[in-house]
Amino acid sequence: MQVAIIQDKILSIEELEPVYFDRGIYFGDGVYEVLRSYDGKIFALEEHLQRFANSLAAIGISGVDIEEVRGRVCKAFETAGIPNAKIYFHITRGSAPRNHSWDANLKPNFFLTITDLADDTDEKTKGIAVSTHPDWRWKRCDIKSLNLLANVLASQDAAQKGCAEAILVDEGGLITEGAHSAFFAIFGQKLQTAPLTSNILPSITRKFAIEAGRNIGLELIEKSLTPKQAQGVDELFIAVTTKDIVPVVRFDGQVIGDGKPGKYTKLLIQEFRKFTA
Amino acid sequence: MQVAIIQDKILSIEELEPVYFDRGIYFGDGVYEVLRSYDGKIFALEEHLQRFANSLAAIGISGVDIEEVRGRVCKAFETAGIPNAKIYFHITRGSAPRNHSWDANLKPNFFLTITDLADDTDEKTKGIAVSTHPDWRWKRCDIKSLNLLANVLASQDAAQKGCAEAILVDEGGLITEGAHSAFFAIFGQKLQTAPLTSNILPSITRKFAIEAGRNIGLELIEKSLTPKQAQGVDELFIAVTTKDIVPVVRFDGQVIGDGKPGKYTKLLIQEFRKFTA
Repeated sequence: MQVAIIQDKILSIEELEPVYFDRGIYFGDGVYEVLRSYDGKIFALEEHLQRFANSLAAIGISGVDIEEVRGRVCKAFETAGIPNAKIYFHITRGSAPRNHSWDANLKPNFFLTITDLADDTDEKTKGIAVSTHPDWRWKRCDIKSLNLLANVLASQDAAQKGCAEAILVDEGGLITEGAHSAFFAIFGQKLQTAPLTSNILPSITRKFAIEAGRNIGLELIEKSLTPKQAQGVDELFIAVTTKDIVPVVRFDGQVIGDGKPGKYTKLLIQEFRKFTA
Repeated sequence: MQVAIIQDKILSIEELEPVYFDRGIYFGDGVYEVLRSYDGKIFALEEHLQRFANSLAAIGISGVDIEEVRGRVCKAFETAGIPNAKIYFHITRGSAPRNHSWDANLKPNFFLTITDLADDTDEKTKGIAVSTHPDWRWKRCDIKSLNLLANVLASQDAAQKGCAEAILVDEGGLITEGAHSAFFAIFGQKLQTAPLTSNILPSITRKFAIEAGRNIGLELIEKSLTPKQAQGVDELFIAVTTKDIVPVVRFDGQVIGDGKPGKYTKLLIQEFRKFTA
């Protein structure tokens, strides 16, 4: 008899529900999105759906109707009735006995949650501390996949150092991005961030932060920084869907500027509000 | 109301079972092992338990009693009563609302399956074809984690080319290992495989293959090969728990030797049987 154990309970494998055969858990074989709403309005839904479609295509999950995904997101958001909500969803390749390669007939699994999202105004007004960690992620970080253990380990390392985010540094000594955010520097009237390559997630908040920068007259420079360079700029911030723009006032213990959110970062936060209103 | 959708079914988030909050699916935040039995005897249980303990420690999952894991494996194996069985188990960090960093109090989730394993004698007697794929994996392949999307994509690429395994090639043009196997070359009386670094899984079958090689008088060389070098050697094989040693007779379309399993590979297969008897 083929058997399974869940925690300490032994059972026949036939009794296992499909969720226990999800390729998402065996391999992280799936892709996801995180969105948020501001005051009852989902922000950048089109952009997130487009990126989701790109991620699905990149790992060869086919047969997903993006309009159906949109319908589920909107229906769930309406049902929840939470004005400032965090919307998470993923699709995995499906449920099947564990085998690396897959059967083309697999039916993808969809999962979504909508939860309360409290804007941490403290982080926005006081800024956060960040710390660096080696970038251990895979070579296709342009795909928003469920393979996030490197991000998890870096995030925990930061948390243990009392920092709110880990800034990832590649083998060449260059900053790629945050463990769950895009990373920006400001010096003079220049806004600098890493260029989009296969090592960087095409962050949607990054895109809007760049647009906000343009609106306030900052010149964009898409070039990676070293940690040492980051410690010497005028201002730093991270950009992430759930919090949009958050000032960084300490980098690996080094105080940035006067240790308070910088003037351009504050302007960017205001400018960003115009997008989300 | 916080809501969830599973497939197309909407429900309150309170109705979700803990399995839907498993950090294994959100992040691949867990580690696993695959063992097999030969004729009613589990092979290399100690080695697998030791590696599992190493993997747990490497990602900071604490509070797991390895003796309890051993007990579950043995109890399930007895219950199954399958002489030639595949034993898979994983532990994830636990179930919690999605957040990259974790709470120290999380209770790890255990999951195990025991299934029938049919030795593919055809692969052993005729040999297999393999194809190369870029090694997209993360930088800690020495940890046997659930982040396996790179392995999955490489395996599928190989399958689509009619190959049984993908051989991964790093950015420097060197072969690391197979997508789910260790990779070996034989030339003259030398047995060559990549050295164990953070880019290589400390494969248990690799260890026994090396021991078997020593027993039949092969000299071990721990040095990475290029694909071109691999195409020019006398013999190739892969080593993997579920199939132990499998001859490789075609590499990216190039026939190896005379296109049949090599003499030393056949000797190694025999020698390996002594370990599993």
